[in-house]
Amino acid sequence: MTSVVRPVVWAEDHLKLLDQRLLPQQERYLECRTVEDVAAAIRGMAVRGAPAIAIAAAYGLVLAVRRDLDSYPQAEQVLAQARPTAVNLRWALERMRGVIPRSPQTLLETAQRIHEEDLQQNRRMAEIGAALLPRGVRVLTHCNTGALATGGHGTALGVIRTAHAQGKLEQVYATETRPWLQGARLTAWELQREKIPVQLIADGAAAFVMAQKKVDWVIVGADRIAANGDTANKIGTYALAVAARRHRVKFMVVAPGGTFDLRCARGADIPIEERAAAELAEFQGHPVAPAGLAAYNPVFDVTPAALITAIVCERGSLLSPTARTVAALLRRRSSLS
Amino acid sequence: MTSVVRPVVWAEDHLKLLDQRLLPQQERYLECRTVEDVAAAIRGMAVRGAPAIAIAAAYGLVLAVRRDLDSYPQAEQVLAQARPTAVNLRWALERMRGVIPRSPQTLLETAQRIHEEDLQQNRRMAEIGAALLPRGVRVLTHCNTGALATGGHGTALGVIRTAHAQGKLEQVYATETRPWLQGARLTAWELQREKIPVQLIADGAAAFVMAQKKVDWVIVGADRIAANGDTANKIGTYALAVAARRHRVKFMVVAPGGTFDLRCARGADIPIEERAAAELAEFQGHPVAPAGLAAYNPVFDVTPAALITAIVCERGSLLSPTARTVAALLRRRSSLS
Repeated sequence: MTSVVRPVVWAEDHLKLLDQRLLPQQERYLECRTVEDVAAAIRGMAVRGAPAIAIAAAYGLVLAVRRDLDSYPQAEQVLAQARPTAVNLRWALERMRGVIPRSPQTLLETAQRIHEEDLQQNRRMAEIGAALLPRGVRVLTHCNTGALATGGHGTALGVIRTAHAQGKLEQVYATETRPWLQGARLTAWELQREKIPVQLIADGAAAFVMAQKKVDWVIVGADRIAANGDTANKIGTYALAVAARRHRVKFMVVAPGGTFDLRCARGADIPIEERAAAELAEFQGHPVAPAGLAAYNPVFDVTPAALITAIVCERGSLLSPTARTVAALLRRRSSLS
Repeated sequence: MTSVVRPVVWAEDHLKLLDQRLLPQQERYLECRTVEDVAAAIRGMAVRGAPAIAIAAAYGLVLAVRRDLDSYPQAEQVLAQARPTAVNLRWALERMRGVIPRSPQTLLETAQRIHEEDLQQNRRMAEIGAALLPRGVRVLTHCNTGALATGGHGTALGVIRTAHAQGKLEQVYATETRPWLQGARLTAWELQREKIPVQLIADGAAAFVMAQKKVDWVIVGADRIAANGDTANKIGTYALAVAARRHRVKFMVVAPGGTFDLRCARGADIPIEERAAAELAEFQGHPVAPAGLAAYNPVFDVTPAALITAIVCERGSLLSPTARTVAALLRRRSSLS
């Protein structure tokens, strides 16, 4: 059931990252030999998806200490600043910081454990999430939360994969997800490879597709979840949640436990990354807007917990999340162990 | 106050259409010498925007009868089928059909009158719509409804232009408007030329921008308005209306009287054009999705009257439109006369 797509591969003495900017036209790996290579790949979105970024960053620390054990603090800082919204990155850095003794070997083992656990968590979340879905379900998903975004299998797309394997899934609608087109380039590619029925739609079409009663569940990932269940995810997620509520379409967030950030009491506390205007003014390098045009390009938004039907993590699912039930879920032992 | 952009120009013996597919990189006119040239330009979206299409079609009939007076019925049919959702096109064809006697000269005069009246209607609508806006207003608009989409000045963008000229306008947010990017390519270009403050946003970002309290009014055009006020417009409009309602942002539809179609009792009766999957899977000829990908590409959607704060046409404005008030508005004489 696991996808063969491998976005992050440790190769003896360096890290290979599938360059997701080139997909689906080319499948080419970047070879990262320094922590700066890894940070640049994260900043430049060669590797993306909150869990995959966390795994890549863990290996980035390994690359740093293999060169110079003293470079650890600086390496950690460079990685932490590469993408501000995704909290799994910070979670992975904190877990790596706890490794004793701090040696290239122990750090590598921990990075590999983070990687392997992510895959196991994905499989577990996929089972939990798919159990919430009825037979014949029609799903809408946003951005890419698949094998490409994770250690493998995927978060939201993992639920969709498992629902398909269980014979429950009738149709997936994948939004394009401007400005980076992760839906068109990556999600559509992953689903098409596995012959899962998918139709691409424009981001702006999602509410109308719901009005036409073509969708039962919206299923998305998360970059950070606040203590009260408010969820930061790819820009456009909030619009989907608003439309879903109007049409009584259910709304599922799928993310590993490391995505929760209890230091953020609510969504308004989550820093929202803004990226360059050029991402909107160009389309894959081709200018589409007049030169010098101003743009407002927040790349994440916040969906309030009140619009979320269920949050699924490896510890279980949470219906109508609140600060109290989020805390209870995180006290639960992982159902992996 | 009128924009110098001229999308449709009659040139003695042929029709010149500014090829909007090439904007903003190139300003080049297509020369149309036959009705089939005009229909192809409409189908291929060299000319777009419901009012501009109607004007181009009227001139298309002139081109047909200049060659062969008997070709009129066939020319009318070819033009009527070029874009199914825009009702102004049908309205213009019906008005041309009523011309007696049917000669190249009388038809040309009527086409020119339709063209000139559209510009006057735009100016009148712009005054009526701008009067509804408060000082310091921040506006979000979708697609292109400017000089490019009309006989000049624009519908929704005409209101924005006039509000700017009156010193009332603080900021415009223009959505990209996938798949054709009319917002990025055309609206941004028109506003930038006139130094009206504009920021481009991704379609999916609009709801979040409203959540951030950056928008007071959404102002859009229409391709067809049903008897009860339900409005068909560019895909993505409905999502904006749903988000606007949640955030108590006001929602204005601006369209000339010819956009009303009383044969459609409600929005569900309006035919919604679907276009090719390639419009989503490719961008300006460059593939962005895997080859052979399925897509669902409805290019219009329907916003129910209940989500519309005001409909503005040249006869006046209609707050909280209903079938009764739409009928009353259309009985009113145009405030032009």
